[in-house]
Amino acid sequence: MIGVVAPVPTMVPPPGQAVVTGTIHGVGLGPGACDLMSVRADRLVRGARHVAYFRKAGRPGQARRIVEGMLRDDVIEYPMEYPVTTEIALSDPRYNDRLSGFYATCIDHLAALALGGEDVVVLCEGDPFFYGSFMHLYTRLQGVAPVAVVPGITGMSGAWTASGAPITWGDDVLTVVMGTLPEADLVRRIRDTDALVVMKIGRHLAKLRRAVAAAGREEAAWLVEYAAMAEQRVTRLCEADAVTPYFAILLIHGQGRRP
Amino acid sequence: MIGVVAPVPTMVPPPGQAVVTGTIHGVGLGPGACDLMSVRADRLVRGARHVAYFRKAGRPGQARRIVEGMLRDDVIEYPMEYPVTTEIALSDPRYNDRLSGFYATCIDHLAALALGGEDVVVLCEGDPFFYGSFMHLYTRLQGVAPVAVVPGITGMSGAWTASGAPITWGDDVLTVVMGTLPEADLVRRIRDTDALVVMKIGRHLAKLRRAVAAAGREEAAWLVEYAAMAEQRVTRLCEADAVTPYFAILLIHGQGRRP
Ligand SMILES: C[S@@+](CC[C@H](N)C(=O)[O-])C[C@H]1O[C@@H](n2cnc3c(N)ncnc32)[C@H](O)[C@@H]1O
Ligand SMILES: C[S@@+](CC[C@H](N)C(=O)[O-])C[C@H]1O[C@@H](n2cnc3c(N)ncnc32)[C@H](O)[C@@H]1O
Repeated sequence: MIGVVAPVPTMVPPPGQAVVTGTIHGVGLGPGACDLMSVRADRLVRGARHVAYFRKAGRPGQARRIVEGMLRDDVIEYPMEYPVTTEIALSDPRYNDRLSGFYATCIDHLAALALGGEDVVVLCEGDPFFYGSFMHLYTRLQGVAPVAVVPGITGMSGAWTASGAPITWGDDVLTVVMGTLPEADLVRRIRDTDALVVMKIGRHLAKLRRAVAAAGREEAAWLVEYAAMAEQRVTRLCEADAVTPYFAILLIHGQGRRP
Repeated sequence: MIGVVAPVPTMVPPPGQAVVTGTIHGVGLGPGACDLMSVRADRLVRGARHVAYFRKAGRPGQARRIVEGMLRDDVIEYPMEYPVTTEIALSDPRYNDRLSGFYATCIDHLAALALGGEDVVVLCEGDPFFYGSFMHLYTRLQGVAPVAVVPGITGMSGAWTASGAPITWGDDVLTVVMGTLPEADLVRRIRDTDALVVMKIGRHLAKLRRAVAAAGREEAAWLVEYAAMAEQRVTRLCEADAVTPYFAILLIHGQGRRP
């Protein structure tokens, strides 16, 4: 079930045949500031001939923004634009069909590059294996082309660092949930944890506020927008605006054992 | 309650007075491999005249190990050795007293350096604000000397990257718990989450195994030892040894929505 990535053997091509399969690197870029990517990511990004990244149609894409100014002059970019799905409900089978088709197209392109001997760096916000879109490519690439993953600093680490307070102490339980959960689930999760992280807030902010209030934790809740980016903003949830950007995380800090 | 770290103003010393207060940097080094620290951390570590780090008496200390070969020739090291507390129960007030005294001594030393104009880099495994010892210095340094924090890739990101599978998809709930929790709490938490991370396992492995079995998730549980270090090892929990090193994390991967 777990596809542990086997080390890719360095193939010595037989005489007259020069093509060695390339690797597709899913590279975590961290929360936003370009010097918060790892030294390994920095090296891969600066050296890449091919970079690919997800973005919404007509938007620059946050992952691409982070590496602005770092790419080679002769870089070849492959923006992967999400199909517009806002008019289809998540539960509608056409939603999954459309996304699956999109991922299949991306895979064809990336695999062709790798099998043609090119390495490709796929730019990923935060950590690729933590609620990231790259995972959909990763699972589909197993057995098709060599894939490697570079972990990154998550958006939530950026957020609690921005808040200026540790997220967990001693034996604290940390729960990470998405703002997309039903209100009753949010209330129950907030009641039942020491420390809390909520991601994917967007248009769920009003519901999330009600859930935090119902769990009696309004005073302890902080909203961090654009963590580690130029626009970074930290506010108490009760003083936050009614509208939240895509890059927003809600935090409740644990208060565990501390000598 | 939250001590948001204000940007430290660059003070221009008046003529004849050369001492500018230094900053104490809590620097996240990531899970182990030295090229998984951030570019910002790399720069701070290589430039540091003073580095401090926690370690157990007689041990090199993992944070110090990560930066081996990176420090300046004229670096001044300040190892902070935890007092031996194994003979005192966690619940005994003398436990907290002894640790508090230890942290107070560390603070005196670090604050004296900063007030004398020296910057200090405190080396931290993973991310400093995520169950880290640096937090105990951080809170005590508020109002005493300027402190700054550089987030890092957590040990758990290193672990799920090593496992070769994404930890969370779609709306998955992720729960992070310590192996020190009572068995019944562990069972309840494991039953009630999609994805799970257990840290601080050590001598709690047998209890944790029983809890995973009671929750019916034995087949899905993986043990990652020394993630992102030379000794890295990934095993199914049911095939793991009876003894686990300090650097070990248990994972159950989420199986959420995926088109
Ligand atoms: C699809 S998830 C990707 C998470 C990413 N892989 C990570 O490791 O953080 C997108 C969500 O992450 C959160 N996020 C990621 N980076 C952030 C940042 N720098 N500031 C605020 N929120 C961020 C937001 O809640 C956003 O809705
Ligand atoms: C005191 S906590 C420190 C956590 C650290 N601040 C972080 O961000 O990962 C120590 C625990 O972290 C886990 N850990 C940290 N780094 C690890 C690694 N590279 N491999 C396995 N476990 C690790 C282990 O469970 C260990 O008991």
